[in-house]
Amino acid sequence: MTETPYSGELDTIYDELVQMTRLVGSSMNRATQALLDADLPLAESVIDADTRIDELTSDIEERCLEIIETQHPDAEGLRVVIGALRIASSLERMGDLSEHVAKQARLRYPRLSIPVQLRGTFAEMGGLAEAIVSKTGSVISTRDVSLAADIARHDDEVDRLHRELFTIVLSPSWSYGVESAIDVTLLSRYYERYADHAVSVTKRVITIVTGAPYGGVTLG
Amino acid sequence: MTETPYSGELDTIYDELVQMTRLVGSSMNRATQALLDADLPLAESVIDADTRIDELTSDIEERCLEIIETQHPDAEGLRVVIGALRIASSLERMGDLSEHVAKQARLRYPRLSIPVQLRGTFAEMGGLAEAIVSKTGSVISTRDVSLAADIARHDDEVDRLHRELFTIVLSPSWSYGVESAIDVTLLSRYYERYADHAVSVTKRVITIVTGAPYGGVTLG
Repeated sequence: MTETPYSGELDTIYDELVQMTRLVGSSMNRATQALLDADLPLAESVIDADTRIDELTSDIEERCLEIIETQHPDAEGLRVVIGALRIASSLERMGDLSEHVAKQARLRYPRLSIPVQLRGTFAEMGGLAEAIVSKTGSVISTRDVSLAADIARHDDEVDRLHRELFTIVLSPSWSYGVESAIDVTLLSRYYERYADHAVSVTKRVITIVTGAPYGGVTLG
Repeated sequence: MTETPYSGELDTIYDELVQMTRLVGSSMNRATQALLDADLPLAESVIDADTRIDELTSDIEERCLEIIETQHPDAEGLRVVIGALRIASSLERMGDLSEHVAKQARLRYPRLSIPVQLRGTFAEMGGLAEAIVSKTGSVISTRDVSLAADIARHDDEVDRLHRELFTIVLSPSWSYGVESAIDVTLLSRYYERYADHAVSVTKRVITIVTGAPYGGVTLG
């Protein structure tokens, strides 16, 4: 990126976006753990922490707009600033999805929200979410878009697990009832959406790096 | 709003946002009809039409960024342009949710996706979605935020129906099996999210009209 008077401010904003990936990563990790262990205090801590993520998002948004307003960035600078705005918005949404998982764990407490038989699958989804968000953080901080292929592969894995869960809850051998089937389906959808948002952040960074047009419909 | 050299361009953009509310309104109407009647061609037409909504979104985004880049709007102008960007993004998402409903109708064709017993509830949800999006269009075009209370009330109704559907599919008398329970739950969630996005568009317009700070966490 060309050096501009506001390059330093932009670097700070992108550092904060990386920090947000850590927060929403930790949030989903702890939500998964709360889900697997029916751990109420842990679920509550995820729900409480979402305010911090929302505040950080607002803070980033405000400073992006300040740069636009006071620095009049050129086309390239504008792409970077607007990119940051959108990345912040996707990360905020990922935080919300972690919170949804935690709320589901809280809803069924002291019972487990998922049958013991599916612990492995959700642990796997949680692990994939962790890998995806950590690589998304690296893509933002290094602009090394070669990690995009990894992220896409993890996302495919999440999609596969999501489909597999549908098959399981719909099989005649499903013995946990309708409520549990719905819980599992919604939970699985939260992980699937979480991964999708991470992919969309990565695509956004690629757009910034390669200078593709702003609002292309292919950007997810 | 103060007259500025780009007021005309902004008016055009807001006209297009109103047009988008019509498109995503028609899309959800037709998706609901396709769902209620297991009408495959209608479902397909909703799915095909989503490309048009995505294109319009890209078009609006690109022109918002052009205004920022070439006209250097002041703080107020910037709030209006960035507001348009975000409204476009919410409306695009509403189009996606209509498409999800249509895809669900297509998935179960030639069967109905929902038990006949629930036709009334989904017809009601579709009607509320229609009322909400039509009033959202009025809020954008007139900036008359007094409709916000109506929209919030309709949204509460959608939430109530959404909760009611959970109770129904979880009751011991539910006789349509797990697959149908999941279909109903996901469908109901699409309507609920659709209404939420409309509420968030309305809040965005209120922020623009009242000049509240940009990225407040209360903006949904």
